[in-house]
Amino acid sequence: MEAVKIGLLGLGTVGGGVVNVLTRNGREIARRAGRGIRIAHAAARDYNSDAIHGLEEIGRITEDPFEVVEDPDVDIIIELLGGYSPALELVLRAIDNGKQVVTANKALIARHGNEIFAAAQRRGVTVAFEAAVAGGIPIIKALREGLAANHIEWIAGIINGTSNFILTEMRDKGRDFADVLAEAQARGYAEADPTFDVEGIDAAHKLTILGSLAFGIPLQFDKTAIEGITQIDALDVAYAGELGYRIKHLGIARRTGKGVELRVHPTLIPARRLIANVEGVMNAVLVKGDAVGPTLYYGAGAGSEPTASAVLADVVDVVRALTTDPENRVPHLAFQPSQLVDTPVLPLEEVETAYYLRMAALDQPGVMARIAGILGEHGISIEAIQQKEPEEGHTHVPLVMLTHRIREGRMNQAIAEIEGLGTVKGKVVRIRLEHLAG
Amino acid sequence: MEAVKIGLLGLGTVGGGVVNVLTRNGREIARRAGRGIRIAHAAARDYNSDAIHGLEEIGRITEDPFEVVEDPDVDIIIELLGGYSPALELVLRAIDNGKQVVTANKALIARHGNEIFAAAQRRGVTVAFEAAVAGGIPIIKALREGLAANHIEWIAGIINGTSNFILTEMRDKGRDFADVLAEAQARGYAEADPTFDVEGIDAAHKLTILGSLAFGIPLQFDKTAIEGITQIDALDVAYAGELGYRIKHLGIARRTGKGVELRVHPTLIPARRLIANVEGVMNAVLVKGDAVGPTLYYGAGAGSEPTASAVLADVVDVVRALTTDPENRVPHLAFQPSQLVDTPVLPLEEVETAYYLRMAALDQPGVMARIAGILGEHGISIEAIQQKEPEEGHTHVPLVMLTHRIREGRMNQAIAEIEGLGTVKGKVVRIRLEHLAG
Repeated sequence: MEAVKIGLLGLGTVGGGVVNVLTRNGREIARRAGRGIRIAHAAARDYNSDAIHGLEEIGRITEDPFEVVEDPDVDIIIELLGGYSPALELVLRAIDNGKQVVTANKALIARHGNEIFAAAQRRGVTVAFEAAVAGGIPIIKALREGLAANHIEWIAGIINGTSNFILTEMRDKGRDFADVLAEAQARGYAEADPTFDVEGIDAAHKLTILGSLAFGIPLQFDKTAIEGITQIDALDVAYAGELGYRIKHLGIARRTGKGVELRVHPTLIPARRLIANVEGVMNAVLVKGDAVGPTLYYGAGAGSEPTASAVLADVVDVVRALTTDPENRVPHLAFQPSQLVDTPVLPLEEVETAYYLRMAALDQPGVMARIAGILGEHGISIEAIQQKEPEEGHTHVPLVMLTHRIREGRMNQAIAEIEGLGTVKGKVVRIRLEHLAG
Repeated sequence: MEAVKIGLLGLGTVGGGVVNVLTRNGREIARRAGRGIRIAHAAARDYNSDAIHGLEEIGRITEDPFEVVEDPDVDIIIELLGGYSPALELVLRAIDNGKQVVTANKALIARHGNEIFAAAQRRGVTVAFEAAVAGGIPIIKALREGLAANHIEWIAGIINGTSNFILTEMRDKGRDFADVLAEAQARGYAEADPTFDVEGIDAAHKLTILGSLAFGIPLQFDKTAIEGITQIDALDVAYAGELGYRIKHLGIARRTGKGVELRVHPTLIPARRLIANVEGVMNAVLVKGDAVGPTLYYGAGAGSEPTASAVLADVVDVVRALTTDPENRVPHLAFQPSQLVDTPVLPLEEVETAYYLRMAALDQPGVMARIAGILGEHGISIEAIQQKEPEEGHTHVPLVMLTHRIREGRMNQAIAEIEGLGTVKGKVVRIRLEHLAG
């Protein structure tokens, strides 16, 4: 089947990410979507051709985005220009032309979503906007589909990475707002004009969208209460910490008997909550449903490829709906049935992990050296070693080690040799260790 | 439009949850799905009619589940019997009869999924199984749809609540495995025969499913390496803690150059990772995609209503696909366009939160009493109060307070009065406080 043809508006940070992810993962994405996806036409004033791979595969590149939305060859428009104009005109034009639309534009959806969705509804097309809230985290899908059986009681989200980075640094280093903001700007985590982020406007756009999805109300950005983090004093961050709290910039949507709350402001939350431990530029959204209880969704809330991940997930959704039979829109195992592969599942002996080891060894000169020697002969390096106090009345001392990564088969051989030593009593306790680093 | 008719197999813990959630949220669910959902026929040997509300709305209740899958009136079968037989026969029969199927049966999918999905594919029906992994957390939807643009590198999940509860208690209280298991059984967190949970078999069923969704490989339960938590010694939990790690029972699926790893075993992970702080019976799945980076999904992994939440989300998916036009399968704002409501958005003065307050007060007798008096007159109770050291050369001392929840309008009045006191200098710092308790 012929590839679906994309019209891409914008080749900046996110647009470049879309091209790069599609270039790198295009075949794997097609195995999931049931059809290839090709950028047939793109519009951009200027772009960094060094940062974008696969530009040569784009059918045409123009400076005029209206040319793209009028292109009869294009099936899906991806709008990544941001702002209200000409984004609104372009999206409405694309809808008029019967094209599916995917956008990452939170301001546009928060302000003009009601109008856009009504137009899409009349024309029978979809406007998808997963990337508009919390970047790569599939929170819109979770609210719209995954939690569809719930009466949503409230949502609390860290949905602006810049603000969270600044608050995290203020706490970790005891520094002032202005000081950290300057650093965030230098590191590219904050814009030269940071107003949208630090005054809470960006978070309010996102919260407006989350509130509508949760409660079934029209988008009402103008009624969302907004307070940013510019007034937060380092002193209060410290005092909150002493009381067992952390200050986070939260977007909160809550149902009450009288109506709905939509508000964005700095908030003390208990330090032991999972969401209180979401640090730096990361985002997280906590959703309380009456049936499911609290659920949390965590990940990168911005950036080139995380946002592209959400944009392209929307594209896959649209392609699946357009292409496959509706009764089997999403394949059972994520990939189309004909596209499953028989990659071998490795036996445990072939698996590499780090290890925690504990053994009971005689407290004599040379014993630890002998054990370390056996590990070394098997290519196992030791990251940490601790000799613990012996239990009362025992002649052997517990020896605890952390090792670097090694194939399990080699570790098993080394352990067998260690257990054969006269100076080590009983079995070696072995627990695998994973750093789970991003 | 006539309601979709469900055939429900099983009225135990999860089946009861499905009836209860549907009874309570049926109207709201229909606003999302575009159509009512009615249990037309249910099968159960025995059930607790005190715990299930809305039984009288079920069209027919029988003891024979085959009667339900043969009922020509039923559109969707929900299979909640668990185990292999007769669940497999019933599911295959339902597929043969052209019915959509929703199941929470992880063992069935992990062992017989390949056969079941092939049959469903041939017959053009869906078999949905969100509830089979991590209960109410929409992790299958995230992998299958939300992260569809990613090359998934690895998954690490806490996917057995019983094991996580036991390991959490062992760490918190320094208790032994056997001791905590007995308590978990008494509290209903562990079965009388806990083998499936503590030996890792249940987690392995779930990991098998996650691995296939992530990597596009057939389900291969027999090749999943399984180790439970029965050998974990309280000593190792303590030593791991001293080294900055926690022991969690993880399901890990990872791609390597040579093949795929599928393994379930106790694992040390750095204590600072978010997933290391998932406690008690809660579940969490950490997914590393090449574009999105690390994302985490957290929530209740079992239980009556959390599992029902996932089952009914699958039902909504199926109803949306069957009912609405395919191009608009999922409504833009989660609810069908005609079903949006104009619940009022409350002004901030009407919002209730707790507060953190800081003010600079003269260190004189009676000052604190006067401030507390003003708060009291406005119905504001104080949860904590601390007097901090004055900054050098200052005559006023910082006074920090946490209050209980109060309407923001009242707090503003109280603050205005406090700021009017001659003994308080400058503005009162006011930051909202939320406990975000489940």
